[in-house]
Amino acid sequence: MSFVAPDPAFEQRTRASFARQGAMALIGAELVRVEPGRVEIALPFRPELSQQHGFFHAGMISAIADSAGGYAGFTLFPPDAGVLTVEFKLNLIAAADGERALAVGEVIRSGRTLTVCRLDAYVDKAGKRTHCATGVQTLMSLVGREGVKG
Amino acid sequence: MSFVAPDPAFEQRTRASFARQGAMALIGAELVRVEPGRVEIALPFRPELSQQHGFFHAGMISAIADSAGGYAGFTLFPPDAGVLTVEFKLNLIAAADGERALAVGEVIRSGRTLTVCRLDAYVDKAGKRTHCATGVQTLMSLVGREGVKG
Amino acid sequence: MSFVAPDPAFEQRTRASFARQGAMALIGAELVRVEPGRVEIALPFRPELSQQHGFFHAGMISAIADSAGGYAGFTLFPPDAGVLTVEFKLNLIAAADGERALAVGEVIRSGRTLTVCRLDAYVDKAGKRTHCATGVQTLMSLVGREGVKG
Amino acid sequence: MSFVAPDPAFEQRTRASFARQGAMALIGAELVRVEPGRVEIALPFRPELSQQHGFFHAGMISAIADSAGGYAGFTLFPPDAGVLTVEFKLNLIAAADGERALAVGEVIRSGRTLTVCRLDAYVDKAGKRTHCATGVQTLMSLVGREGVKG
Repeated sequence: MSFVAPDPAFEQRTRASFARQGAMALIGAELVRVEPGRVEIALPFRPELSQQHGFFHAGMISAIADSAGGYAGFTLFPPDAGVLTVEFKLNLIAAADGERALAVGEVIRSGRTLTVCRLDAYVDKAGKRTHCATGVQTLMSLVGREGVKG
Repeated sequence: MSFVAPDPAFEQRTRASFARQGAMALIGAELVRVEPGRVEIALPFRPELSQQHGFFHAGMISAIADSAGGYAGFTLFPPDAGVLTVEFKLNLIAAADGERALAVGEVIRSGRTLTVCRLDAYVDKAGKRTHCATGVQTLMSLVGREGVKG
Repeated sequence: MSFVAPDPAFEQRTRASFARQGAMALIGAELVRVEPGRVEIALPFRPELSQQHGFFHAGMISAIADSAGGYAGFTLFPPDAGVLTVEFKLNLIAAADGERALAVGEVIRSGRTLTVCRLDAYVDKAGKRTHCATGVQTLMSLVGREGVKG
Repeated sequence: MSFVAPDPAFEQRTRASFARQGAMALIGAELVRVEPGRVEIALPFRPELSQQHGFFHAGMISAIADSAGGYAGFTLFPPDAGVLTVEFKLNLIAAADGERALAVGEVIRSGRTLTVCRLDAYVDKAGKRTHCATGVQTLMSLVGREGVKG
């Protein structure tokens, strides 16, 4: 789908909000692409991100998938609106075994109050990309609530 | 529900596997309680775990909820079986604003191949506990696959 | 959890809305119990409700579970508000093999805009009750929109 | 994605199983298209399929979406395997207001034991198609269990 961002400064606003997410810095996630209704976040592997078998922990994949979807919705919000994840569901369809994970959030439906995104995650290993997770997310737009801007 | 763990060493096996999850160490999660079919994981707050508004990042809540459910299922597995998250869904029902988060995973249905868990998360703030997330998770038991033990 | 319905006529209003659901009449569903934040719907088995193996079709279980949750939320709405299912997720944890199915919807979190319910379904067979499905549902309260009252 | 069905008689086998689903006959659902890994089911509107506002009941949309996904997976199964829905999640992104609903199930990942499908539903009204639901479904392949063939 193709969307137009109502706020021309959507990318700057999204990058500024991402920079305030301590959790993304802690795990080493990078905001790769910001387009209207579509955001990509990359996560280079290190042992500190693993589950017990040495692959990416499902929680780390979830964290970047949730942020990718949340910011995909955020790009289409008015300048004064904050974003909240209402719920998300993720199917882990392949082992997240790779040197780098990539989460893609894409808006499917952009409403006044609720936004629905598709979430996908991939792992790259030795030049090969594997689709490792897919899901759906519901976001809420919060306007004029103190403390939730951005 | 009440379950009996087929492996008497279930707690030791669970704690050993948890200790191998680099991601749990990175975020500072602690394995609080391990019972047959029920596991609790705590996560003390620090700014490195936040989203843009200073609360726990939904991805961090998801990470401990996913691990709590995964290990709740794991306690009921035979000694040689590994655990894999097939999918999970989480509703974030209140802001995860607190000094400490607690995730509880509880087995609802324990099958030969698939296990279903309920996931809940709470935040404690100034002595008050708030239910901040609830969801459902599907796990798969993997027997005899190299590299996935535990 | 215990809730107080803001509208004293909540049961009458719920029963009137249920009676307008053609789909519930078609499949033969009955509104068994209506309490603040909790609704039960029963569905007697007949071959017309089956999947290919002769059990209740997952879609029929979903239909009564969705309605049970939707009306559980509805009992806590103000008199002029309509209810909309935003999303739901259901795990089918046992074969829905029985003479009668029972769906229970229970409010977990009742908010101004969004309500979250737990969904459960059971089948009764020869005097034995089996928990056959569990899930989570998000509802939206619609106030003052033409055509969606009730 | 493009899949090859291991059983050349996949369409015949799928149509035969669909014909045994009493629930699909009751609601008037039609198996429109059967391709390897992709199935479409249509449902003409009638008042008996409505919720309280006169649109398609979410449970009826779920029923055809669940069957479309289930049979999409089924087309890729070996001849002696039955299919079981493990879980599904559906977001209802627009009012299901139309003369006809169409559910599309598409396999995203086809495994030995588990298959993951994307579910989508549309409504047609006065020549215009609206995307009304999207979701994800997990299926299980059952081989050699009495009573679950097909």
